[in-house]
Amino acid sequence: MTGPRYTDLIQSLPSTVPFVGPEEQERARGAPFRARLGANESLFGPSPKTIAAMQAELADIWKYGDPSSHELRHALAAHMACAPENILVGEGIDGLLGNLVRLLIAPGDAVATSDGAYPTFNYHVAGFGGVLHKVPYVEDHEDPSLLFAKAHEVGAKLVYLANPDNPMGTWHDGAKLTVALDDLPEGCLLLLDEAYIEFAPHGTAPTIDAEDPRVIRMRTFSKAHGMAGARIGYATGAAGLIKSFDKIRNHFGMNRVAQAGALAALEDREWLAHVQREVQSARDRIDQIARDNGLTTLPSATNFVAVDCGGDGDFAKAVLDALVARDVFVRMPFVAPQNRCIRISCGRPQDLDVLAEVLPEALSEARG
Amino acid sequence: MTGPRYTDLIQSLPSTVPFVGPEEQERARGAPFRARLGANESLFGPSPKTIAAMQAELADIWKYGDPSSHELRHALAAHMACAPENILVGEGIDGLLGNLVRLLIAPGDAVATSDGAYPTFNYHVAGFGGVLHKVPYVEDHEDPSLLFAKAHEVGAKLVYLANPDNPMGTWHDGAKLTVALDDLPEGCLLLLDEAYIEFAPHGTAPTIDAEDPRVIRMRTFSKAHGMAGARIGYATGAAGLIKSFDKIRNHFGMNRVAQAGALAALEDREWLAHVQREVQSARDRIDQIARDNGLTTLPSATNFVAVDCGGDGDFAKAVLDALVARDVFVRMPFVAPQNRCIRISCGRPQDLDVLAEVLPEALSEARG
Repeated sequence: MTGPRYTDLIQSLPSTVPFVGPEEQERARGAPFRARLGANESLFGPSPKTIAAMQAELADIWKYGDPSSHELRHALAAHMACAPENILVGEGIDGLLGNLVRLLIAPGDAVATSDGAYPTFNYHVAGFGGVLHKVPYVEDHEDPSLLFAKAHEVGAKLVYLANPDNPMGTWHDGAKLTVALDDLPEGCLLLLDEAYIEFAPHGTAPTIDAEDPRVIRMRTFSKAHGMAGARIGYATGAAGLIKSFDKIRNHFGMNRVAQAGALAALEDREWLAHVQREVQSARDRIDQIARDNGLTTLPSATNFVAVDCGGDGDFAKAVLDALVARDVFVRMPFVAPQNRCIRISCGRPQDLDVLAEVLPEALSEARG
Repeated sequence: MTGPRYTDLIQSLPSTVPFVGPEEQERARGAPFRARLGANESLFGPSPKTIAAMQAELADIWKYGDPSSHELRHALAAHMACAPENILVGEGIDGLLGNLVRLLIAPGDAVATSDGAYPTFNYHVAGFGGVLHKVPYVEDHEDPSLLFAKAHEVGAKLVYLANPDNPMGTWHDGAKLTVALDDLPEGCLLLLDEAYIEFAPHGTAPTIDAEDPRVIRMRTFSKAHGMAGARIGYATGAAGLIKSFDKIRNHFGMNRVAQAGALAALEDREWLAHVQREVQSARDRIDQIARDNGLTTLPSATNFVAVDCGGDGDFAKAVLDALVARDVFVRMPFVAPQNRCIRISCGRPQDLDVLAEVLPEALSEARG
C-alpha cells in the first residue's frame, strides 16, 4: 500500500522541525531551566484581573468561542480608534501571519523581508510557495528604505517589517515610517508587526488610517499582556482586507478563555503600566550585568535585550551554549552580523540574579 | 492606491461568512437563548478535575505551550494503543482538517464526501482549491461503499467519513468499516472523523493499525470531554503522515491551558462515564418529547438526536425558526432528504424542559 499523495509544494518543503520549544530542550538535557529568558514571554505574568476573568470563563469552556469575537473586537476598535470592521482577532500573530500569507502568496510570488527577521514569517511564506527576498539589517535595524526598494525590484506582494524589531530590540520613530510608506510600491502590502509596541517609546507606532490599503498591522496579547500560552492576537487593516480572512480562517478557532482574558487585559491599563516599569528595570539590569562582564548591549524598545558578546557568531553561540548548560534558557539571532549577540528576555529580579550568577562562568568557558 | 493582490484561488472563493455562531444570532434577536442545543456542545461540562487542572495552569499562561504537546501526546498514545509518533495534537478537529487538506489538496485535486456531511471539511477543501465530489446518504447513513466507489471514479486523494455521523447521528459497526477499507483506492487517504465516538456503542471504532497508510482518524476534546471552547483535538495516523504536519502547522499554536485540561480530561474516566449516562438519558428524553408531539427520531450514537419533523425541508426549517423564536438554539441538516429533520443536542433536564415546553407551539406555528 502506498501512502497519501502530498501536493508538489508540500513535497518540496523541508522535513526538519523548524521550531524547538524550551520544554524539548529541558527533556533533552534531563533538567529544568532555572531562568526562562529565551522566548520573550512576560515573566511578570498577566494582570490579576485577567487571571480572574479567565478563571470565571472556565465555567463556560464547554461552549465554542464566539466566532466573531464580537465584544473583544469592539473593545479593540475603541483602543485602536477605528471601526470593528477594521479589526480581526486571531490565534496569535503566528496564526494571523499564516492566514495573511495564504491570502496573498501563491507559489512563485515575491515577498520581501530582512535577513534575520522573524523566522515564523519566513516559514509561512515558504509554506505557501512564496519566494523570499532579503535585505540586510542596517546598523542592527530593519531598514524600510532597503525593504521597499527590494519590494519594487522584485514586485513583492507583501513586505514584512517589525517595529520594534525582534531579535535586536531596535526601533524606528513612527513618523519616519509614515514618510517611508510613500516609497512602498503600488499593490504591495506592508505587514507591520507591532508585537512589542507596548514597550516602545511614545511615537514609535506610526499614525496610519485603518483604511489605508497599504498596511496591515498586527499586535498580540502574548508579550506585554503576559498571555503567550493563550494564543490571541489581532490585526488592524482596511475593512475589505479584514473581511477577506473570513474566506479561509478557522471561524470557530478561538479559545473562549483567551477571548475573555484579552478583554480584561486590554482594560487593565494599570497592570500594563506596571509591566512597562518592570521591563524598564529589567532592561537596565541586563545592561548592568553585561557591563559587569565587559560586554555591551543594544538599546531596546522591547521586553528583551540584545547583548553584544564582542566576538563573532561562533563566540556568541558558545556563550549561549554555556548559559544553557547552566540552566538559563536564552536564544540568539541567527544571521551575521546580528548573531554576535545573544537575546535575553526581561526577567524578574530573581531570574536576572541567575543570569548574573552564571554569565561570568559562561563567558569564561566560551573564551577558554 | 490599490489594495492587496490576492491569489487567484482566494479571489475565486465566496465572500459570504460561512459560519454564524449562536452569539451572533442572540445579538440579531436582541435576546439570549434559554436553551443552547444547536452546536452539540456538552452541556454537562468538563469534569471538575479538568476545570481544576485548567485553573492551576492559568498561573503559567505567560509561557507558550509546549509545541510538541509532549505529555499529552504520550498519554494519547497510551489511550490509542500506538506510539507517540502516531499522534498529532492540534487546534480542534477543524484546525487539523485544515492542515490535512493543505498537505494533500492542490487546486483541481479530487476529494470525496457525502452530500450533507460536515460543512467545515467542505470549506477547507474549497479553500485549497480542491474539487468536491459528493455521494448521497443511504437511509440517513454516510455510505462507505458509495464513497470509495466515487473515490475510485474521480481519483480522489482524500475521502471524508464521519463515524458516527453528524448531522444524522447514525453509525456503522467498526468491523464493517474495516472490511470496506479494502475497497479504498490505492493512494487515497480516508479521513475518519470520530468526533462523537465516545457516545457510540462498543465496536463502532474500527480496529486499524496506527501505521496503516490508508487512514487518519481524528478525535476531539470538544464533545464528550466538554471542552469545545478550549480548541483541542488529535489525529492518529502513520508516523510519516503525522510528521508531515510539522512542515506547515503552527508549532506554537496550542493554548497551554487546553493542553493541561485535555490531559486531565483523558484521565478522568469516571466523568466520561457520567457524561455518557447523561447523554443516554437525554437521547431518551428527546425521543419522548418527539413522540409526545407525534414526531419520530433517528437512533443516535452521538450527543444529539435528529428529530424527523415528518415533512420536507421547508417544514423542518419552519419548525426550527419557530424554536429559535422561542429562545431555543438548534440547527438542522442542510441537504435533502436529511433536512426533513432538526438536530437537537443532548441538554441537561432543565434545557430539555424548555424544549418540551415550546415544541408544541413551534409545531403548531409551523403547521399553521
